[in-house]
Amino acid sequence: MIRVTVWNEYLHERTDGIVKDIYPEGIHKVIADFLGKNDDMVVTTVVQDDPENGLTDEVLNNTDVLIWWAHIRHYEVSDAVVNKVKDHVLRGMGFIPLHSAHMSKPFTALMGTSCTLKWRDGDHERIWCLDPSHPIAAGVPETFVLDPEEMYGEFFDIPKPDSVVFMSWFRGGEVFRSGCTFTRGYGKIFYFRPGHEANPSYYNENVQKIITNAVRWACPTNRLAGITCPDVKPVEGI
Amino acid sequence: MIRVTVWNEYLHERTDGIVKDIYPEGIHKVIADFLGKNDDMVVTTVVQDDPENGLTDEVLNNTDVLIWWAHIRHYEVSDAVVNKVKDHVLRGMGFIPLHSAHMSKPFTALMGTSCTLKWRDGDHERIWCLDPSHPIAAGVPETFVLDPEEMYGEFFDIPKPDSVVFMSWFRGGEVFRSGCTFTRGYGKIFYFRPGHEANPSYYNENVQKIITNAVRWACPTNRLAGITCPDVKPVEGI
Amino acid sequence: MIRVTVWNEYLHERTDGIVKDIYPEGIHKVIADFLGKNDDMVVTTVVQDDPENGLTDEVLNNTDVLIWWAHIRHYEVSDAVVNKVKDHVLRGMGFIPLHSAHMSKPFTALMGTSCTLKWRDGDHERIWCLDPSHPIAAGVPETFVLDPEEMYGEFFDIPKPDSVVFMSWFRGGEVFRSGCTFTRGYGKIFYFRPGHEANPSYYNENVQKIITNAVRWACPTNRLAGITCPDVKPVEGI
Amino acid sequence: MIRVTVWNEYLHERTDGIVKDIYPEGIHKVIADFLGKNDDMVVTTVVQDDPENGLTDEVLNNTDVLIWWAHIRHYEVSDAVVNKVKDHVLRGMGFIPLHSAHMSKPFTALMGTSCTLKWRDGDHERIWCLDPSHPIAAGVPETFVLDPEEMYGEFFDIPKPDSVVFMSWFRGGEVFRSGCTFTRGYGKIFYFRPGHEANPSYYNENVQKIITNAVRWACPTNRLAGITCPDVKPVEGI
Repeated sequence: MIRVTVWNEYLHERTDGIVKDIYPEGIHKVIADFLGKNDDMVVTTVVQDDPENGLTDEVLNNTDVLIWWAHIRHYEVSDAVVNKVKDHVLRGMGFIPLHSAHMSKPFTALMGTSCTLKWRDGDHERIWCLDPSHPIAAGVPETFVLDPEEMYGEFFDIPKPDSVVFMSWFRGGEVFRSGCTFTRGYGKIFYFRPGHEANPSYYNENVQKIITNAVRWACPTNRLAGITCPDVKPVEGI
Repeated sequence: MIRVTVWNEYLHERTDGIVKDIYPEGIHKVIADFLGKNDDMVVTTVVQDDPENGLTDEVLNNTDVLIWWAHIRHYEVSDAVVNKVKDHVLRGMGFIPLHSAHMSKPFTALMGTSCTLKWRDGDHERIWCLDPSHPIAAGVPETFVLDPEEMYGEFFDIPKPDSVVFMSWFRGGEVFRSGCTFTRGYGKIFYFRPGHEANPSYYNENVQKIITNAVRWACPTNRLAGITCPDVKPVEGI
Repeated sequence: MIRVTVWNEYLHERTDGIVKDIYPEGIHKVIADFLGKNDDMVVTTVVQDDPENGLTDEVLNNTDVLIWWAHIRHYEVSDAVVNKVKDHVLRGMGFIPLHSAHMSKPFTALMGTSCTLKWRDGDHERIWCLDPSHPIAAGVPETFVLDPEEMYGEFFDIPKPDSVVFMSWFRGGEVFRSGCTFTRGYGKIFYFRPGHEANPSYYNENVQKIITNAVRWACPTNRLAGITCPDVKPVEGI
Repeated sequence: MIRVTVWNEYLHERTDGIVKDIYPEGIHKVIADFLGKNDDMVVTTVVQDDPENGLTDEVLNNTDVLIWWAHIRHYEVSDAVVNKVKDHVLRGMGFIPLHSAHMSKPFTALMGTSCTLKWRDGDHERIWCLDPSHPIAAGVPETFVLDPEEMYGEFFDIPKPDSVVFMSWFRGGEVFRSGCTFTRGYGKIFYFRPGHEANPSYYNENVQKIITNAVRWACPTNRLAGITCPDVKPVEGI
């Protein structure tokens, strides 16, 4: 059983009419709903305004994969929480930052770069699969469309991904590494570009399939009780 | 159900007393036995002297993961068979060349390099895990010993692997990239260094665990009926 | 002094009026001309119809970087020549296949994959830099346009590149890994997507800058007299 | 002219007799001396106890490549300085952390991982070249010995390097990714494992050659005035 926690900033859905209409109970609720249909997953949700930003030790100790949606309140997440999230990822917890979470504190801390990019609202996106052998691409068509979606464009200041599973084309002339895998310590990370809060992308079947695949892929392979450097006995007779 | 085919050159076990004592029914039989204990795998074996080197269209069309052990008869495998194996890998079939199969024709054709290395019989090997997040490392200790084992040493002339999951240390002073993953087309490849025919490495529990994990990892994500370049409709109005 | 050899199939420029108008003396001549302006390069040209396809031992032994343009006569290049080119690359010679040379025999032999892709004539290309730290990107703007150019689209069946330095956007809706680096043995390879024979892309200043940078980058770091596995003395007392 | 700044913690050389005997004027002085013999480099040194830890804006603005040696006073380097170093790397400055600088604040901030490893004093090290095509390997033998040297062992908690140029073997049974390249933003990073302060490794000719090569490789390709997301005009008529 994969224990998934969906974390949401949860601001726009409460304050912006357009967003509210699309995600009346919050983006986290829609993601939790489609993931919850899988027999091998148990899903809970937390939001930024919960105590300790929703990420108590108990929650983190019981999370295999953490999904993160955030946009304009990144800097209100406490550094103590960010350090704990980073530590859990290095010890094996999967981490899936979505869309504007490219600027979230846990993601930028794990990347070590600025994670900046270009953007423009209201474009037409075509997503291409560049690594059809990757588990996250299972059952996903070679290309599919999200229209409208916000444009994110290169140069995306991230370290070289282990795999660029998906690449986006935007009508306005930009390309973007939209689905990127990374390993950090014992943990696996998948950054996925969609979806803008004012577009219904999390209802798209391919987006749902990709996030579902990503949860299974990011589930810990091995997990450390702590970052440790255990002593290893030298070979005899040195 | 993962359909595994274990291919063996099957020469030393019939002609060399030491090898015969260790693998009386052939290396393929020992590998098939430990894999066959898994509920999600169905395993068959073929050997080089079978018609069409054991790899008829029917066999290949019904193989999800092909394991390959070979040593000194590489050049007796027909080019027609090699081309078919390569084509099946590019269309999604998993491929796991073991030990001296680094010089097998399918592996060198898929790598594009000479795949040469250094070697010396009768050393002491310590295998280290360098990518504990990789599915092939699941449940494998940080380090384990094979003693005796043949030394394989760098420079190993392979393209940069997607992941070096395991690295070997040899008492004589060498290091070696012992567990390497590659993607080629829709297919996943895992080269694994042990075991020399005169050493009982395929009875080692960690070696068995690694090969078992590798079979699951290499199982096709997506599979092509043929290498094709399907037409994609341009966006409207260009 | 970098010794560059520019190899050309040299067919379209002799038989097709449109191509002849753009490259009256052949694509190889235009490439040799702009490279030859650099004080650190000495450039020669050969064409497919030369004896031994222009690549005698003497030519190859005196080539640091080989540039290759070809389109529809790949299979008329002799296998003996292809094997020699591959061997020279593995021993250190730089190799820069351009545009439709993605299907040339030396490139596909070095990649180990089908190297197939999608294509459509007469599109509008925008090239983006994805790795501004790479030497091949020196002085190249973040993005530049080639219009018209032939579309090449993903899925491009190549092994994962060491770096995707450039990514193309096409008006029709496709993306493509247009500037890819690989290492094979001691050799460095840069595949670069432009230019279609009916478009004047090799006169473009950014295309010229990229190919010039690539020649310097691909120049051998170390060079082998032969692919060898020299004996290394074990540490004392094992 | 490559402007190199060598930064040193500069503690052991002043307080420990053994270290003082090997590096009487400090490790930074020995590194500056051998680099300074190159016609294409101008080298300056700074130490941790200098004002602003030696890294004023003027120093950083005039540094192409920053070399960093540190051991036990990492946490006395101010966060303001660390942030500036990180920012300069992302904008193009080369960065070469040596040996125990694996735990320095700028390196761990750029990596996003714990950067922990195993260690043991007084071992015998053999360094192997795994990427002979890499510019940092130019003229370096396939293998060379440092004896004695401190052992550093895997698991080394770093992100997957772009290239593992060098791999170390230690007599006690460990392996270690000793020469690793990374790109972060516009900057190039080379971590190099030797040398322990109580061993004279920086006098070794191969160590000197590697650091010299690394300086040339890490010199900025392109450099940003600031991390920016310049507007790019969409293609016409979207």
